[in-house]
Amino acid sequence: MIETIPITTSFHSEMVDITSQVTDCIDKRQLKEGIVIVQSMHTTAGITVNENADPDVKTDMLRRFSEVYPWEHRKDLHAEGNTASHMKTSTVGHSQTLIVEDGRLVLGTWQGVYFCEFDGPRTRKVVVKIIEG
Amino acid sequence: MIETIPITTSFHSEMVDITSQVTDCIDKRQLKEGIVIVQSMHTTAGITVNENADPDVKTDMLRRFSEVYPWEHRKDLHAEGNTASHMKTSTVGHSQTLIVEDGRLVLGTWQGVYFCEFDGPRTRKVVVKIIEG
Amino acid sequence: MIETIPITTSFHSEMVDITSQVTDCIDKRQLKEGIVIVQSMHTTAGITVNENADPDVKTDMLRRFSEVYPWEHRKDLHAEGNTASHMKTSTVGHSQTLIVEDGRLVLGTWQGVYFCEFDGPRTRKVVVKIIEG
Repeated sequence: MIETIPITTSFHSEMVDITSQVTDCIDKRQLKEGIVIVQSMHTTAGITVNENADPDVKTDMLRRFSEVYPWEHRKDLHAEGNTASHMKTSTVGHSQTLIVEDGRLVLGTWQGVYFCEFDGPRTRKVVVKIIEG
Repeated sequence: MIETIPITTSFHSEMVDITSQVTDCIDKRQLKEGIVIVQSMHTTAGITVNENADPDVKTDMLRRFSEVYPWEHRKDLHAEGNTASHMKTSTVGHSQTLIVEDGRLVLGTWQGVYFCEFDGPRTRKVVVKIIEG
Repeated sequence: MIETIPITTSFHSEMVDITSQVTDCIDKRQLKEGIVIVQSMHTTAGITVNENADPDVKTDMLRRFSEVYPWEHRKDLHAEGNTASHMKTSTVGHSQTLIVEDGRLVLGTWQGVYFCEFDGPRTRKVVVKIIEG
């Protein structure tokens, strides 16, 4: 069972909360117990689970990732010039696995699921795979 | 099937070996073949699999993560002041998926499962989801 | 169901495309729908999903990881001297979970599965766990 979540990002770097879209997939499939794998289909955008309360966390995180992996780098060979986006994607991960119990995502109070755009704005695709059990 | 592992950390940053607690969950549920998802329920603490032999590796890793993501940063907006903890959590990941074969965790000789406290000391919670198959 | 992929690396740092070996495991087990967990059995080598087209991306990524986590570090305690390899492994992750649909890996156009050698050259082992569903 695979569901697709289409995403259109608005900025070059952006953390988009997709928790409700993932929840919709679970509801649609009436999954009670199991896991869901949430995967970005791209190499310059990833998935992470992080703070869903203060939006400043997202701002800080995107800026700090860009400090560790600066866009401009005189040694980069990749002609597209977006090596930094690839670094960030492998750092947060192209996918995350989430737990479902009693029909609900098992998340801590402050945890949300984020699509991490690192080379936008673009039209993107996330797939959600459901495993019952 | 979900199990909970309560954790009380003692330091601000700390890698706590939880391999035996995860093994206990597998034994309790008598899982022979499958996978387990080990998830931190927090946004300032993650899970990783790394060296279980020389404790200096943990010391080095925590120090190096703090060099890459320093605690103090004049540009951080997040009022709690723990943006670095959020960075580290997304870097190692909020969860890891482990394999079980013949009733045992499939780990390399030097691999252990670690709860990574990045903003302690605190009382924390890890959940373990078991999928047979 | 576990399969093993033996890997012999040729360089100190290297991203080895193992997508076809993972596909072989799926074909051999005739998996139609499910997930596969691809795990490095080591603490100085990980797994990531990233760009499979321009090989310059791999060169850039390995160099940038070494800039963020330099090999030499006067504060490192670990006597083996490979703390940087442990950092990189926890950053990309010791394993990745992949989706299978209609007997094929669900990957984006540019996504490939990579074994990331961070302390080679060595003889290494990757295990692939298959979960149907």
